[in-house]
Amino acid sequence: MGKKRVMVPVEDVDLSTVKYEKEPLHAPHLTGLVFSLFVRIVEAPLLGPWIMSKLKKQNKIDELLRNTVIPEEPMFIPEYPPQDEEPGVVIIDEDERPEDRVESALTCLPHYDPAASLGNSSTPFRYWKIRDYAYAYRSRNVTPSMVAENIISVIEEISGKKPPAPLLISFDAEEVRKQAAASTQRFEAGNPLSILDGIFMAIKDDIDCYPHPTKGGTTWLHEVRQVKKDAISVARLRRCGVIFIGKANMHELGMGTTGNNPQYGTTRNPHAPERYTGGSSSGPAAVVASGLCSAALGTDGGGSIRIPSSLCGVVGLKTTYGRTDINGSICDSGTVDIVGPIASTVEDVMLVYAAMVGSSPATKISLKPSPPCLPNLSSNNDSDVLGSLRLGKYTAWFNDVHSTEVSDKCEAALNQLSKGHGCEMIEIAIPEIHEMQISHLVSIGSECLSGLNPDCEDGKAKKLTYDSRTNLALFRSFTAADYVAAQCLRRRIMYYYMEIFKNVDVIVTPTTGMTAPIIPPRALQSGETDMVVAGYLMRFVIAANLLGFPAISVPVGYDKQGLPIGLQLIGRPWGEATILRLASAVENLSGESRKRPITYYDVLKAN
Amino acid sequence: MGKKRVMVPVEDVDLSTVKYEKEPLHAPHLTGLVFSLFVRIVEAPLLGPWIMSKLKKQNKIDELLRNTVIPEEPMFIPEYPPQDEEPGVVIIDEDERPEDRVESALTCLPHYDPAASLGNSSTPFRYWKIRDYAYAYRSRNVTPSMVAENIISVIEEISGKKPPAPLLISFDAEEVRKQAAASTQRFEAGNPLSILDGIFMAIKDDIDCYPHPTKGGTTWLHEVRQVKKDAISVARLRRCGVIFIGKANMHELGMGTTGNNPQYGTTRNPHAPERYTGGSSSGPAAVVASGLCSAALGTDGGGSIRIPSSLCGVVGLKTTYGRTDINGSICDSGTVDIVGPIASTVEDVMLVYAAMVGSSPATKISLKPSPPCLPNLSSNNDSDVLGSLRLGKYTAWFNDVHSTEVSDKCEAALNQLSKGHGCEMIEIAIPEIHEMQISHLVSIGSECLSGLNPDCEDGKAKKLTYDSRTNLALFRSFTAADYVAAQCLRRRIMYYYMEIFKNVDVIVTPTTGMTAPIIPPRALQSGETDMVVAGYLMRFVIAANLLGFPAISVPVGYDKQGLPIGLQLIGRPWGEATILRLASAVENLSGESRKRPITYYDVLKAN
Repeated sequence: MGKKRVMVPVEDVDLSTVKYEKEPLHAPHLTGLVFSLFVRIVEAPLLGPWIMSKLKKQNKIDELLRNTVIPEEPMFIPEYPPQDEEPGVVIIDEDERPEDRVESALTCLPHYDPAASLGNSSTPFRYWKIRDYAYAYRSRNVTPSMVAENIISVIEEISGKKPPAPLLISFDAEEVRKQAAASTQRFEAGNPLSILDGIFMAIKDDIDCYPHPTKGGTTWLHEVRQVKKDAISVARLRRCGVIFIGKANMHELGMGTTGNNPQYGTTRNPHAPERYTGGSSSGPAAVVASGLCSAALGTDGGGSIRIPSSLCGVVGLKTTYGRTDINGSICDSGTVDIVGPIASTVEDVMLVYAAMVGSSPATKISLKPSPPCLPNLSSNNDSDVLGSLRLGKYTAWFNDVHSTEVSDKCEAALNQLSKGHGCEMIEIAIPEIHEMQISHLVSIGSECLSGLNPDCEDGKAKKLTYDSRTNLALFRSFTAADYVAAQCLRRRIMYYYMEIFKNVDVIVTPTTGMTAPIIPPRALQSGETDMVVAGYLMRFVIAANLLGFPAISVPVGYDKQGLPIGLQLIGRPWGEATILRLASAVENLSGESRKRPITYYDVLKAN
Repeated sequence: MGKKRVMVPVEDVDLSTVKYEKEPLHAPHLTGLVFSLFVRIVEAPLLGPWIMSKLKKQNKIDELLRNTVIPEEPMFIPEYPPQDEEPGVVIIDEDERPEDRVESALTCLPHYDPAASLGNSSTPFRYWKIRDYAYAYRSRNVTPSMVAENIISVIEEISGKKPPAPLLISFDAEEVRKQAAASTQRFEAGNPLSILDGIFMAIKDDIDCYPHPTKGGTTWLHEVRQVKKDAISVARLRRCGVIFIGKANMHELGMGTTGNNPQYGTTRNPHAPERYTGGSSSGPAAVVASGLCSAALGTDGGGSIRIPSSLCGVVGLKTTYGRTDINGSICDSGTVDIVGPIASTVEDVMLVYAAMVGSSPATKISLKPSPPCLPNLSSNNDSDVLGSLRLGKYTAWFNDVHSTEVSDKCEAALNQLSKGHGCEMIEIAIPEIHEMQISHLVSIGSECLSGLNPDCEDGKAKKLTYDSRTNLALFRSFTAADYVAAQCLRRRIMYYYMEIFKNVDVIVTPTTGMTAPIIPPRALQSGETDMVVAGYLMRFVIAANLLGFPAISVPVGYDKQGLPIGLQLIGRPWGEATILRLASAVENLSGESRKRPITYYDVLKAN
């Protein structure tokens, strides 16, 4: 064992003396043959653990988890004192039917003017919103079945491409037609189930959506894990009339942030097909960004909703831990994972969120959540509430990005919020960011491995990508005592953030430290591991996972290459309403208009 | 990886078909030279992990944690829905001063008649109760300083014995005299702090009691872990005027259930000096059983209060997880450990409990405890409340003991409760007892190791006993994913117990499956590992630790060799009042009178 280090009790840390430290991750960038050799080495009985312990030593992981006295007791799941009610909100009653909750959400939205939206080429916004579809269906211009045929033809067109770059990895045209026909009939009978009836959505491949298999982006998981019904969140949406087009592509097992998937092909960024979408919810973000669906469900255990939403120029909501019911997804035992919506606009995120929201019974006991709320954007006092918000920014961290274009655009949006709406900007400092990363890595890795272990019988782990296998080798090296130490760190980090939230309502950062990275051609076949890119992509997203806070990524513009930039808003526990309100204001800023991506499919084609 | 096994979801398990299965633990009984060789092997780089994996395979540990699909999500700390208020209780307000809370506790006790207690040789009960001391001090027959001198002379007499068998491993006569003098002065001035003023207590060596070092029974822990103040529970008692005689001996690091300690000598059972006290709170139980102190504080992570209380014929209370504040003890990061009182009688346990009770601020957020209560034993309706209690007994488990004398005595006490007070006996069944044991082992081991890791720099782990080193080698073999799987088991087991608690108020078992075992002479020098004995000692205690339930051990008689037998009462979450009420009734049964142990010191010697 190494030399002991003793941490100062968290209450005694002087936040005013905190200095931001860049601490680059040490790990090789590997792809192709070298990557395959590396994987064989890290999986070897004696050499593997030795290599892993060297890599962990370089990154001071064991030093932190084994040689450091952490005075705090462990915090295994994010725990908070009861939170104040947010002002100007509408409560979404979890005990109501999902259909009725969507109606409540509708009352929160500003007045809908079809002339200003649907097919009006003068509006800068390129996507059809849920209310546009709903209007079109109700005015009998379009039927869900017509839209379904357009979507099916696009999916079939994409599926023939070489090399493969699928949006979906499980798709059944007849299944889509069946759902669409049922919805069309409901409209014909004048009985749509809700505003979401006939709305098309894609479901990330780690969330159960009957009758599709759940592969989690692997080639074999569905063989050992049968899907017998919808995940809870999917079932709630189905009750509202949502049509599911299939299972969206993802980074295998969610263990990566680029969306690279050599098993099925890597989904391309709709704004630049030679670039990554970001991940792990690569397919869901691309399906929405390309205009194919109004919304998608993703999971987010380490930025997996927000990163691809940022890189693809759409809106992604990471809900408070336990706010939505993750039962029926692969990682339903995790303490950092949530299921949440991706959509092209904040109002669509609100509608989907209202339908799917609701904690599991176990969560209600352990976390005692405040009731879910939405901002009442139709109310007169919305601008008052908006003007009262204090936004915390840790400038040194905010600016630690790959290109200043990212931080500049985010900064510009914040300046407009400040000048236009009166939001107050407050400088904050956040200590122990490296400790937070390690705590998160150990938590997500161990929880994922624990769920996967029994399924890895008969050498199935060898059928995973090199990327997953490298990660699993790392995760296997964590001891139970490491896990407990990581939870002690979680309590420390929670203390810092809760102190910060005494002075600010929202913490603002770029969502990602870079725009969409290029896909190295060799990485299409072999995958890759690139911790530098991963570092830029994950830099700002981790806190919301480790500490369970809600966070949203909302587009704020484009870099010189036309690649989207996302702003992240991190809210207080259970504070979805506040970040949704702010995200909506960001969307309405007089900045750049939203660009139509290169890969854009106009599936509505209203007459 | 082995073949996958899939557990049925817990809600679908049919409790009516559960059969009790004896599953003996597989591990060698080792002591002396062979033990020292074994430790060298399990600590060896390659051979050690191989041996451990064989031992774990024999006991089906990896099979359960790595090859089994456990459908439940993890439960990292014991979580409960809000509990009903217990009938006939007095609330002990956590926000009041400890001195005032003790006054509330006094109102719960039956009328005190000095003639029936103090120095009355016709009463069967041999120990001086707290109220006896209090009466003696207030009637000026005795002063705390007089008692102190008697205690000091006993401790000094014991400390010269060969081989050493100390009750205390940190003792400072001057420090005791100082505290006693201050208390004596308060009595002279007519201003005692509370009923606990001048009451002598011992503190287990893993709980901070300033200015003593905290060694946790090791030879070196105090060198790397300074004590700057009292643990929270000790500080609360000190405010009430309690006099601390020193740090009581224990099984090293609490990692054993016999109380064997080759470092300082093994505390002997006051009823039979050639036998173990049980552990790990060996010193605290022996100090009370030998009449030296009215009470002691112990910790209980795997029966460590209840086992020695049972084997030494005293009363030990394991409080609900989080009910008392464990900050300032070695294992203050655990999810199974609590600090609680040991005393010669239930009423003294109630008084000490009232003074020390109170959750930590973190616990209040995460666990939302019901307020602590005591049974109002002075009330007229006490017998009504008692008669309404339903006692759950799993007969096959209850009878799985080393000698039927143990189960017979416990059964006899229950029959008396049933006939004399109208308590209803209900047959219950508890599935997956082996799974519960594994879940507990992984939890306590990993949490203990996590706290110890940073202190084990510079080869300090080699200075531990062979027993501790064997345990640490096992604990090091648990992976982070094992830990998470163990927490999934915790949620399963919790479900079963909460189902049982829908039909019963208290679960009854023998506290231990055997009376005090003989100390093998060779084990005095080298320690020993004997999983058969450990199995009998721990058989019934684990559930209260893994699931956080309160539990109490209360004496019910003696076996043919005159060794005490304890009955365990396991209560609902936060239900200390109910088990205290029942324990008090058990104490008052017309069974055998309490025997004076062989090693009994009459330190009060009132004139």
